[in-house]
Amino acid sequence: MDAIIKSYIEKLQDYNLIMPAWYDDRKIVMLNQLKLPKEEYIELRTAEEIAQAIKDMVIRGSGAIALAGIYGVLIEVFNSKGKLDRLEAIGNLLISTRPTAVNMHKTVSNLITSLKGLKPDEALVEVQKLSVDIMEKQLEVERQIGKNGAKLISDGETIMTICHAGGVAGFGFGGRTLSIFRTAVEQGKDISVISCETRPYFQGARITAWELKKFGIPVKLISDNMAGAIIQKNLVNRIITGSDRIALNGDTANKIGTYLLALAAHDNNIPFHISTSKYNVEPRNRTGKEIEIEFRNGSEVLYIDGKNISVEGVEALYPGFDITPNRYITSIITEAGVFTPPYEKKLFEISRDI
Amino acid sequence: MDAIIKSYIEKLQDYNLIMPAWYDDRKIVMLNQLKLPKEEYIELRTAEEIAQAIKDMVIRGSGAIALAGIYGVLIEVFNSKGKLDRLEAIGNLLISTRPTAVNMHKTVSNLITSLKGLKPDEALVEVQKLSVDIMEKQLEVERQIGKNGAKLISDGETIMTICHAGGVAGFGFGGRTLSIFRTAVEQGKDISVISCETRPYFQGARITAWELKKFGIPVKLISDNMAGAIIQKNLVNRIITGSDRIALNGDTANKIGTYLLALAAHDNNIPFHISTSKYNVEPRNRTGKEIEIEFRNGSEVLYIDGKNISVEGVEALYPGFDITPNRYITSIITEAGVFTPPYEKKLFEISRDI
Repeated sequence: MDAIIKSYIEKLQDYNLIMPAWYDDRKIVMLNQLKLPKEEYIELRTAEEIAQAIKDMVIRGSGAIALAGIYGVLIEVFNSKGKLDRLEAIGNLLISTRPTAVNMHKTVSNLITSLKGLKPDEALVEVQKLSVDIMEKQLEVERQIGKNGAKLISDGETIMTICHAGGVAGFGFGGRTLSIFRTAVEQGKDISVISCETRPYFQGARITAWELKKFGIPVKLISDNMAGAIIQKNLVNRIITGSDRIALNGDTANKIGTYLLALAAHDNNIPFHISTSKYNVEPRNRTGKEIEIEFRNGSEVLYIDGKNISVEGVEALYPGFDITPNRYITSIITEAGVFTPPYEKKLFEISRDI
Repeated sequence: MDAIIKSYIEKLQDYNLIMPAWYDDRKIVMLNQLKLPKEEYIELRTAEEIAQAIKDMVIRGSGAIALAGIYGVLIEVFNSKGKLDRLEAIGNLLISTRPTAVNMHKTVSNLITSLKGLKPDEALVEVQKLSVDIMEKQLEVERQIGKNGAKLISDGETIMTICHAGGVAGFGFGGRTLSIFRTAVEQGKDISVISCETRPYFQGARITAWELKKFGIPVKLISDNMAGAIIQKNLVNRIITGSDRIALNGDTANKIGTYLLALAAHDNNIPFHISTSKYNVEPRNRTGKEIEIEFRNGSEVLYIDGKNISVEGVEALYPGFDITPNRYITSIITEAGVFTPPYEKKLFEISRDI
């Protein structure tokens, strides 16, 4: 009954992907991203387990969360043997794990709508076909961002990035930023990457460095506050970072620290690019001022490996991301092309195409 | 034989200082700054032990290192019972611990020159008088920087800083930056501080937060990459940082990360100040371009508490400081006054006054 999805997953082996999760014999095998760079995999057999894994950040990144959502629906259809009574509740459960994960929200909703009213046998076939379709499309988005971005990169360049927008945050090809580095290398360009460690969670140190090593791309680590000195010393040719959300005018919310990199790039006349997908454009926000900055629990700053880095009683602040104003963004790299200012019209067009 | 220095150290108790080291009965008691915020004190009985402590960074900060140098000479004079044959060698040993510590270099050299040719009894008295004089002068420098800087601060302000330029980096009053916060509070101003944690050594988290807590000044910690978001959200009224070295035109080398704070301050129209002393001005460097940026061992970035934060085989870069161009510096706070651009003439004048 799972022949279609099985044969697709087998085919994926040829693509040399670093996948965050895959289907294997009525269960989902998921890389525990909390433990990276230690490679630890867990097996999930129900949609509830998958929802919990998303909630616990075992899987993260907008593409990867959407993939987990697909697998949640798929497993539920298998477990119910094609009977779909519970599907709406499962959909709501999955969506509720990350209210801001627009990509997963749309993917799961569409999938469930398409399955409604099908007979068990039809549903078992249809959920697999639809899942394969969506995965294939998402992979194509990563490949296309990679191609569009790689055109900007010349042989011999060193590129700086922050946080992790790579394969395990997407469908395994390289996500929204590492796909560009990967494609540049596949084009025969000799490049290297400087990865900001990305406090407080060290995603740059733990995940980006690990993934680039897997892809065979040379990487050097810096702590986030070193970016200015490295750029001043002409050790970087350009900066490319991912994005959490983009306002229509191009103002970009991304991992805390991104804005400082953009300022340093601007001050030293090197290009600064955002790599993103149409799924990250939020047409309801005209400018970055309308994007709310979430303050997270300050204890995440204070404790490393359970140990307080400061003094008992001292508190911390933790804004989760910052806003890079469009005036500091040289271009925005998307699956639909590379956009230069003004961004508003182009971003509006691709945001309607979802 | 140690009555003069003893009575001076007793007098210091009244000043409410957080001293990095003090004289106590033919030995030096030194705070081990490597262990902060854990308060651990060690006792040193020879100039060689003091030199080793400077080398090992048990004591750090230009004022504190100069103080350690004074104590090195003092102990040697006591240990030799005023016979001074070895004094030149001891001076060279102390100076060699930190070739760039200009303040200590000058202090130790002058002290040794003044003692040459004295009889044992005279030397025992003279070394104490001279030490007291120098300490009193250095304390006055801190107090004066505090007074000059505190004039800039209004009641209710929140000030951001990075790294640690405080009491234990100086003579205990508050060094070159925390002296300003302390003085503002003594003037009845209600202020609070946001301290950047300061990777890779976390001096902001470990030492600045600890010292501000001792002074009773409210402090909140952020990781360095959060400075941009905090400034964007109007949570900071001004930034004040110390300095490692200042070129004649005001370009300032300071702890890595300072330049990014200056860019963010500039972009958001809040004042950015350098607090420094005439000892940090280097007249031989006309601009920041002539200040060499030291690259330190990358493993200091990779390991926290002996544990690799990244992946086996991944290397790191570690520029020790960055250069903040004078155009981003609103004013330079010194013991001789607060200077606004252009800086060259004023900095040249105070640098001659050493």
